[in-house]
This record gives sequence, C-alpha cells and structure tokens, in this order.
Amino acid sequence: MDENSKGLLIVISGPSGVGKGTVNRKLLKDNPHMVFSVSVTTRSKRENEVDGKEYFFRSEEEFSQMIKDGEFLEYMRVFGMFSYGTPRAFVNEQLNAGNDVILEIDVQGGLRVKEVCEDAVLIFLAPPSMEELKARLVERGTEDEHSIERRTEVAKDEMRCISYYDYVVVNSSIGQAVKGIEAIIHAEKSRVKRSSDLITLLLEGCDNIC
Amino acid sequence: MDENSKGLLIVISGPSGVGKGTVNRKLLKDNPHMVFSVSVTTRSKRENEVDGKEYFFRSEEEFSQMIKDGEFLEYMRVFGMFSYGTPRAFVNEQLNAGNDVILEIDVQGGLRVKEVCEDAVLIFLAPPSMEELKARLVERGTEDEHSIERRTEVAKDEMRCISYYDYVVVNSSIGQAVKGIEAIIHAEKSRVKRSSDLITLLLEGCDNIC
Repeated sequence: MDENSKGLLIVISGPSGVGKGTVNRKLLKDNPHMVFSVSVTTRSKRENEVDGKEYFFRSEEEFSQMIKDGEFLEYMRVFGMFSYGTPRAFVNEQLNAGNDVILEIDVQGGLRVKEVCEDAVLIFLAPPSMEELKARLVERGTEDEHSIERRTEVAKDEMRCISYYDYVVVNSSIGQAVKGIEAIIHAEKSRVKRSSDLITLLLEGCDNIC
Repeated sequence: MDENSKGLLIVISGPSGVGKGTVNRKLLKDNPHMVFSVSVTTRSKRENEVDGKEYFFRSEEEFSQMIKDGEFLEYMRVFGMFSYGTPRAFVNEQLNAGNDVILEIDVQGGLRVKEVCEDAVLIFLAPPSMEELKARLVERGTEDEHSIERRTEVAKDEMRCISYYDYVVVNSSIGQAVKGIEAIIHAEKSRVKRSSDLITLLLEGCDNIC
C-alpha cells in the first residue's frame, strides 16, 4: 500500500545499556528498506572505526562550516566537548528513496529532531526496570563502578523525558522489542495523516465512477 | 508489556462490500483477547439469527428505555426506521477485563464513538479502488443493479469521511489487511499516552535506585 511513498524518520532513544545497538542491528538485518543515519562527530577516529560507517569524522572547522551551511537536521555543540550532528542531506535522500531512516540518538537530540521534523516518530526503548538496567551495565563488564553510577544517573534523566516521546517499547527480549518497533512503523504508515496520496486517489475514484 | 492493562476499543468501518466481515472474523480467530461488540437493534430477528449473537433484538420501547438509562455508548435512531445502538456495559466489561473490543459500525457511528471515547482507535478499511469495490459488490451476486448503485453512492459518502479516522488500511488481501490492523493495535498499546502506568513504575524505579 505504500510502495511509492516516502520513508519514515524514526528516532530510537533509550538509556545506555538498554540494548539499542542490538535491537537496531536486528531491525536493519530484517528490514531491507531500513537504513541507519550516520552522524558527524568531531571526536577522533578510533582504530577499529571507519569514516562513514560508525561516524563521519570531521574537524571542528568543518563542523562549524556545516552548521553555517545548514547541513544539520540537528546538532549538539558544547564548547570544550566533542560535537555531534545529523546530516540533513543523507536523511532526506534516503526518505525520498522510500527508505525508513533510523536515528539512534539521545533524548535531547530526539526532541530537537521533533522540533524541525514533526513527522518523525519518536520511540523510547526502556528497560523492564531500573534494577535490570543497572544489572545489564554491570554484566557488560566494560565499566567501573563510578562510570556505572554516572550512566545510571544519566539514564534517570533520560527516563524522565519519556512523556515527550510518541511510543515506549520495553526491551524485555530483543525479538519482542524488534516486533514492537516493526508494528509501530507498519501502523504509522497507515495513519490517515500520512496517507493523503492514497486518500486523494480513492476519492478521485469516487468522482469518476458515476 | 501490557498484560495487566485495559483493552483497546477499536472501530472498524468501511463501505459495504469492502470485506469487513471476513477481515474481522479472521482477526477474532487469530487473537484470543479480541471480542466483537454486539449491537442492539429494533429490527426483527431473521430465522437464522440468534439473540445476543448477531444482535440483541429489542422492542422500540425497550430501546427507548435503554436510551433514558444511558445504556448506549452510541446509538442511531431515525424515526420510521430501525434503531441501532452499542451497549456501553458490555464494552466496558470487556475492556476492563483486558480484551480488545471490535466495533464494526458505519462511519457516522464511528465518529459518535470518538466523541464520547477519545481513546477509541478508528480504522477505515478501504478498497484498493472504487472500481474494485463495485466489482466485489457485483461478484457477491446478492443484489440487483439498483441496490449496487445505491451502495456505491453510500460508499462514496463514507469514503469522504476517511480524514476523520485515525488509520486507513487497504483491503488488497485479507492476510495483509489483518496484519495491518494487528500492527495498529500492537503499536497503539505502546503509545506513551496509553502507557502511564508503565512509565510511573519505571520512574519510581529511578527514585528508588539511588
């Protein structure tokens, strides 16, 4: 029913440790018309990273120029810290080609996207409970206690923004979470507000038939 | 994620011949937590009908009393014609028990439901085209040419109300249409505005953890 229509811009946010990466990789694997938006950053490329894959790595000067040229859908710049931005051209190209674009960004970034693109669908991936989130961070074993405490604090701040999001999907299991997000995308595409082309066509049929 | 929550009230409308009956029967068959709302009518029971199954058959006087007692979620009464109404108690009982309730009613009835129950989800089942709808009515072979013309006219009026609905699902195939409606129900249940209990629980977890 929507073979020829524009893709959806989908923001997926959620606290560190909730499993965004795993869920999104499975989503992309199962859905050929879905792509990741690659962000621009000013931080240095790590050894195992590839420019244009994990991030587009740009200098502070290049980043400033991109802001001036209006090349970002949204960006985050805090002086003295690394900057991050979502390149507008890539997102628009993909949407126009009928692909759904997944933006994996933090809650503040998600809310900035919604401001400039009210058609975006904001999904919050939540843990089954805060205890479970903390357990997953500990289990991951990549961070010390102090870092886990800090991440838990940030998580709490993020959770307090759920009410600004459109949907909340609990990541109890990866399969369930992916199914939930797929249902949201399927449903959003049949919303009347997104189906004006289809409705026009049907109503033209009404005028022509008699 | 919503084992303990209230069910959804789902209105499914669409022109005569679009296949509402077939789609809804398949939906009910595949989803054990879904029930049909049975309407009250003042028309006479046909031989093959069972009171409480196709309709609750009531007299004009009983219908009037039900209106006075506020027993209808919505009703339609045109003097000199049969009356139809949706009994509120049955719907509420089922929703409170966590079942999703399907209301198969016309567009005007659907809009009356939305007025009193803004949580209801309104789905319009549309034909792939008006030509296809007419072809299906002819193929059904149960009606003469005049009746088909009249039904096509009513269909055109109904189609003009699509924009007041929440979703439009095209019935190109029964399987696709059922999948589309199931995705809508799944997605609607993870809408933030319907997840206040879950969010409260998660945020309580945030307060307790440190």
